[in-house]
Amino acid sequence: MADDAPRRDAALVALDWGTSAFRGWLLDGSGRVLDGVRSGDGSLRTSAGAGTAAERAAAFGRAFERLCGGWLAAHPGAPVLCAGMAGSDHGWAEAGYLDVPGPLDGLARHLTAVPARDAGGADVRLVPGLRVAGELPDVMRGEEVQLLGALEDGEDRPVAVVLPGTHAKWVRLDGAGVAGFATVMTGEVYDLLRRDSILARLARGEPGPVPSDAFVRGLDVDAEHGDERGVLALLFTARTLVMTGRLGPEDVADYVSGLLVGSEVRHGLRSLADGPVAVCGSGSTTPRYRLALERRGRTVRAVPEDVAARGLWRVAVDAGLVAGPSAPTPILEDQP
Amino acid sequence: MADDAPRRDAALVALDWGTSAFRGWLLDGSGRVLDGVRSGDGSLRTSAGAGTAAERAAAFGRAFERLCGGWLAAHPGAPVLCAGMAGSDHGWAEAGYLDVPGPLDGLARHLTAVPARDAGGADVRLVPGLRVAGELPDVMRGEEVQLLGALEDGEDRPVAVVLPGTHAKWVRLDGAGVAGFATVMTGEVYDLLRRDSILARLARGEPGPVPSDAFVRGLDVDAEHGDERGVLALLFTARTLVMTGRLGPEDVADYVSGLLVGSEVRHGLRSLADGPVAVCGSGSTTPRYRLALERRGRTVRAVPEDVAARGLWRVAVDAGLVAGPSAPTPILEDQP
Repeated sequence: MADDAPRRDAALVALDWGTSAFRGWLLDGSGRVLDGVRSGDGSLRTSAGAGTAAERAAAFGRAFERLCGGWLAAHPGAPVLCAGMAGSDHGWAEAGYLDVPGPLDGLARHLTAVPARDAGGADVRLVPGLRVAGELPDVMRGEEVQLLGALEDGEDRPVAVVLPGTHAKWVRLDGAGVAGFATVMTGEVYDLLRRDSILARLARGEPGPVPSDAFVRGLDVDAEHGDERGVLALLFTARTLVMTGRLGPEDVADYVSGLLVGSEVRHGLRSLADGPVAVCGSGSTTPRYRLALERRGRTVRAVPEDVAARGLWRVAVDAGLVAGPSAPTPILEDQP
Repeated sequence: MADDAPRRDAALVALDWGTSAFRGWLLDGSGRVLDGVRSGDGSLRTSAGAGTAAERAAAFGRAFERLCGGWLAAHPGAPVLCAGMAGSDHGWAEAGYLDVPGPLDGLARHLTAVPARDAGGADVRLVPGLRVAGELPDVMRGEEVQLLGALEDGEDRPVAVVLPGTHAKWVRLDGAGVAGFATVMTGEVYDLLRRDSILARLARGEPGPVPSDAFVRGLDVDAEHGDERGVLALLFTARTLVMTGRLGPEDVADYVSGLLVGSEVRHGLRSLADGPVAVCGSGSTTPRYRLALERRGRTVRAVPEDVAARGLWRVAVDAGLVAGPSAPTPILEDQP
């Protein structure tokens, strides 16, 4: 039927504007991707040199026009929805936070409009981040639309979504929405150790795209000894195993990665109900987390990292910015 | 009585020649310090540019003559006993390892002589390191004489000696000697985080000489949440507590130190029998470990970091290099 065919008019410009990267998608009225842009103009670079909030907002506006001006010229009036660090207090405008525990549909009810003067006249709304209060506060900004996108799926709802990265996020879900989340510095600690530690001086080569035996060995050492010894002690075994000829220098990075991911997963699962876990990572990261989780008896659902566009579309529908379908969209099929 | 008075003739040159520092002591026949030297000529700097083992040995010999030649000219024939990385396979000569579990008096029975041509004709012996075999091997080199020195004491024997540092050592003792030990990368991870992480960008100022309230807060957060969340997750709270105005930028370093030392001590005590713990650290480190251990109900005995000279004296006595007393010596009283 004609009504079911995708409408190819642009309906939404969706942006994931992070610290070090800018990603934009032009979506049609069914949420399908018509065009995409990716750039290193993250919020840090964009705001560099801007002294006041007004100068900063103007700088974001200029970058936006440069990166997406063509889309808006061709599709005047298309609304723009933006997640990520552009909504931080050092961004385009301050988009605040939504407190969790709470339902994710609250995101659509708490959008912040960017003043037209800072957006080249376009209708730009910012998505809030998520915030956990309490003794151990936590925040995310940008991952909340990946999270929404990961849940736009007909399969069993996972009990958690893991978003690996420099600062990995573990998001616990319940029936109503997000029960809580925690950030784990696995990626940053790994990078520091790889770049500048005594282990860096031992290691040769780069980790491969698929998890190696050395990665599995790191997982196993963590599983057997992590609770008793702790990750700060186990890390040193990368050195002593090399010294005693029982770990090759080319395996150091993967072994260390296994120790760190093993520790992260061991703790992350500790407070988690039974059920499947969704992992929303890049091509080389997801298989590592899948392996670590499956070795602990979890069913894993892999979700592509660029699911942010799907989450932004969901927010736009919920907010009434677009008259799109409320059912899951096939948005990722032809994403660039 | 005259026999009890210290003999002021030099009896031993004692060296602790580590990776980045050289320390030497001239000891009299009672083990008292007559003179001392301290230099940045560690094994790394000394061996730089030496291509072969022979060139390296000669380079160590030249550095030794430069740093201690005056003592040997004034006291010809005094034996020289050296611990630390000078005994590694990239050092002066390879001194091997003594396996643990095992008694510490084995150190004196496994000294390695440096060929006279590489020692300016002096009688130089190297102390072996300690080694743990098994699935999680470990090594120390230099700390074993600090350990011996820490035990040269009339008080109750501790159940463990902790040697904080870039790579902290936890040495478990039993009646016969060393039951085992483990190295913890607390200091190196702390330095990496302080220098180059997202936490480094938040932090202002340097940690003070005494443990602050922020350090105690880090200990408490680790004690309450460490087992469940893990240190890789708790570290990120340094950021979110600053973002939410609940931790001052000037307190970040001490809070992070508390999280890391808390994690180290929590795991270190896990496999330890009841009893006092000796801490052999520097002036600003020992109070932190003391606090962390005392909050977990341990009695702490602080031992000065430069107890290495006392341990070297013990090895020299046991090896028959000097005819000194076998009872504890008052060596540290007038150490420079």
